[in-house]
Amino acid sequence: MAVAIDSTGLVVKGNPVLGFVDAVLRGVGQVMFQNNTFTGLLFLIGIFVNSWVFGIAAIIGTVVSTATAMLLGVDGSLVRSGLYGFNGTLVGIAFAFYLQPQPLVWVCIVFGAAMSTVVMATLMNVLGTWQTPALTAPFVFTTWFFLLASPQFAGLHATSLLPTAALPKALTATGVPTVETFYDGFFKGPAEVFFQDNVITGAIFFIAILVSSRISCVAAVLGSVLGILVGLGMGAAEPSVRLGLYGYNPVLTAIALGGFFYVLDWKSYLYALLGTIVTVVVFAAFVVGLTPLGAPALTAPFVFTTWLFILAKPLFQRLRPVAPADATTPEGNLAMASRSA
Amino acid sequence: MAVAIDSTGLVVKGNPVLGFVDAVLRGVGQVMFQNNTFTGLLFLIGIFVNSWVFGIAAIIGTVVSTATAMLLGVDGSLVRSGLYGFNGTLVGIAFAFYLQPQPLVWVCIVFGAAMSTVVMATLMNVLGTWQTPALTAPFVFTTWFFLLASPQFAGLHATSLLPTAALPKALTATGVPTVETFYDGFFKGPAEVFFQDNVITGAIFFIAILVSSRISCVAAVLGSVLGILVGLGMGAAEPSVRLGLYGYNPVLTAIALGGFFYVLDWKSYLYALLGTIVTVVVFAAFVVGLTPLGAPALTAPFVFTTWLFILAKPLFQRLRPVAPADATTPEGNLAMASRSA
Amino acid sequence: MAVAIDSTGLVVKGNPVLGFVDAVLRGVGQVMFQNNTFTGLLFLIGIFVNSWVFGIAAIIGTVVSTATAMLLGVDGSLVRSGLYGFNGTLVGIAFAFYLQPQPLVWVCIVFGAAMSTVVMATLMNVLGTWQTPALTAPFVFTTWFFLLASPQFAGLHATSLLPTAALPKALTATGVPTVETFYDGFFKGPAEVFFQDNVITGAIFFIAILVSSRISCVAAVLGSVLGILVGLGMGAAEPSVRLGLYGYNPVLTAIALGGFFYVLDWKSYLYALLGTIVTVVVFAAFVVGLTPLGAPALTAPFVFTTWLFILAKPLFQRLRPVAPADATTPEGNLAMASRSA
Repeated sequence: MAVAIDSTGLVVKGNPVLGFVDAVLRGVGQVMFQNNTFTGLLFLIGIFVNSWVFGIAAIIGTVVSTATAMLLGVDGSLVRSGLYGFNGTLVGIAFAFYLQPQPLVWVCIVFGAAMSTVVMATLMNVLGTWQTPALTAPFVFTTWFFLLASPQFAGLHATSLLPTAALPKALTATGVPTVETFYDGFFKGPAEVFFQDNVITGAIFFIAILVSSRISCVAAVLGSVLGILVGLGMGAAEPSVRLGLYGYNPVLTAIALGGFFYVLDWKSYLYALLGTIVTVVVFAAFVVGLTPLGAPALTAPFVFTTWLFILAKPLFQRLRPVAPADATTPEGNLAMASRSA
Repeated sequence: MAVAIDSTGLVVKGNPVLGFVDAVLRGVGQVMFQNNTFTGLLFLIGIFVNSWVFGIAAIIGTVVSTATAMLLGVDGSLVRSGLYGFNGTLVGIAFAFYLQPQPLVWVCIVFGAAMSTVVMATLMNVLGTWQTPALTAPFVFTTWFFLLASPQFAGLHATSLLPTAALPKALTATGVPTVETFYDGFFKGPAEVFFQDNVITGAIFFIAILVSSRISCVAAVLGSVLGILVGLGMGAAEPSVRLGLYGYNPVLTAIALGGFFYVLDWKSYLYALLGTIVTVVVFAAFVVGLTPLGAPALTAPFVFTTWLFILAKPLFQRLRPVAPADATTPEGNLAMASRSA
Repeated sequence: MAVAIDSTGLVVKGNPVLGFVDAVLRGVGQVMFQNNTFTGLLFLIGIFVNSWVFGIAAIIGTVVSTATAMLLGVDGSLVRSGLYGFNGTLVGIAFAFYLQPQPLVWVCIVFGAAMSTVVMATLMNVLGTWQTPALTAPFVFTTWFFLLASPQFAGLHATSLLPTAALPKALTATGVPTVETFYDGFFKGPAEVFFQDNVITGAIFFIAILVSSRISCVAAVLGSVLGILVGLGMGAAEPSVRLGLYGYNPVLTAIALGGFFYVLDWKSYLYALLGTIVTVVVFAAFVVGLTPLGAPALTAPFVFTTWLFILAKPLFQRLRPVAPADATTPEGNLAMASRSA
């Protein structure tokens, strides 16, 4: 039989078309570390519920970055697990989000997604020296380059969602948090990972993660809550918190450190907690630091903080790290650790 | 006997409390590469002479970063030599220096000092690939993140010491150097490593270094002098030179390259001279480059320049490098080199 | 016989003065990857045709960076092939280009060229971990530091060619391309690698490359054309395109990826094409990103893009990379590959 189903979704053999579709869906799922066909499909559904333009951009981006990897000869198992898709997914949505819909933008999505594959290979090589994953850095760097370039090109027009270049200033008014701050912020946290300003999309995303891993889902929930609490505790602007902007990076850090790249126990739990809290500060720092350039923080705060917390691993002998190549799900990591113990 | 004294200070065995106190004092000493209990104690005294708030912030930062390293399982010998303390020391003082004293700032010092330990472990892992030390980079990165974040948080208020974000402009007036420019600048050079705008503190710091290493003390003296001379020679603003701002980075570069990470001889002496001069230019570059962000240069000019001059070592066959793990004092390095010769 | 001539220029043995002259000329040639005495000589002639000040600055920079490498004990074969010269060449011209001619500037050229040798050794060590070349990064970093520092120093005055620090803004008018846009832009592309705004200089540079490698010359031609076409296609400002500013980075990327660091075949040809196109976007991004600092992009877009495309090599199994130490000319690489096949 060419197609079967296991706990991570489809198992495709001998059917290149269906195999490619599976790689693309897993690619979408890998945006939140879920190598799972159904998670990817649910993520896509969540995006289409909010906007079919973003859905199409996501698919094009994932297809191009995955196909580029195949053409350049990337190892088949990496491609099949979606590792060369997720940055293209985000490149596609980001370009459609920050640039006005013109034909040239779709050309840029194709070149940007292809470039993200090169950056991914570069970071897998360089960071592989220290057994550290590239995360969404290829998306971040590629998107920064194209968005920064846009003022120089009359063919690209920024949408009003791209920040205007300015000198950083201290907040003057922050607003008062209400129940909606928490409700909206909680669901929009995971949704904003994909630039989706939509509560229902966020709810679908939580379910999508749950399909793949209960521990990752709990981590995502706690990450979103922590983002809101630390943000408000520090005195962040209420509208930003309500939009989920203080949540999308902590959600990713919490999933990454909460059982995925370290075997979950109470020590790594506290470590993930520290990392998630720090991510909130790093997010604010990136927002301010990028203000004079008029560039968005994207998922750079998550990438940077998680790199720090993973690159440190050989020195911290009380934690049990999981090499990127071995990491499956938090549950799978726990099972592997108990076998080898 | 649980406690003895050798040339580097206390030797503590079997007494965890006193051992921790010793690690903290050596941590303060390591800000200027001195793994020496008494140097650290004198540094603290120098800080308290100027301000007891900064003294307490320094102690809290050092305690938290050292304790975090112990909790996460960092190798005991690294902790005991103070290598997981000195970045916390500077984080503590920097936060108290640039942020108005509110309860939240002390919470930030705790989290910042803990974060600096993670950054330290990351850099020891990454830079260890090329046998290169982390220097004060964990302090620099952590402090930049918290200071950059501060405008986004109503709970954090910058003091007037933090630069206001602006577009860089050429100097219009530089002022005329007087005897005080040299006198104040000379002593405030080392003092400003710890953000202390105080001549007496600087004098105590010179003595503190002398207790541990005569060669390092001479390097610090020459570094402070060179910072003033090169700064004035290039046409730097007199008030900055008088405040020691052109001295604190060259002081650190001179100590690092002047016998500590290279065995001292006339070739490494000239090499350290080049590095110290270059540090002055790199300092001005960081000041200008950070102007649009309203962020201070901290010790980044020293870190960056010294990294360059140490990472280059395998190519320069006429210099005799000392691996970070083997470096003790310039005198110790010389003795080790003559034994192996 | 002490001197002979082979396909790469002079072969000097036992004559230190002539050997040094040869190393300096090859250093100038290495700005565009040509380890060739005559290419370097023709590059110099092309510069002197445009400006004798820039010519002298280029010679001083190359001499100082080469001599510094010899004094510090860099391996003789690296020095002889000009690898410790080309960054000094560009440092010399850049300082003379962006800073008003005062005695202090010539002192800065000497220190900057010496610093570029240290940065070169650092990058050869660090990037050597992944068999990746330093390219012109030592020139870029050194020049950025000195130019960024200049507003802090009354002794250094920027020329009107250095951008004024400002907040990035979208283009308002782009102008209409004419035949001159293509003609001037085509020849000034390679000329601007050395900051030479001169059509004849560009023509001499094409010939200089041809002397060493026909494939590299074709790559340079295509790179210059692509820079113009992609720039205009995206809607870049016509005056910038006409000045060759959209060409000098793609020229370098095209030479580097077009047969030099990958064996030329149709797959690496398409890969080089992608890299060259991406370079245009990355150039615009650097221009915008450096606007608040008032700093020029220099060859950073080429360096950054080419690093990405070379560091990725172990993952892309369909390409045949050439290690920096083995790369001679595209023709030489092809011959080596066919021998080992």
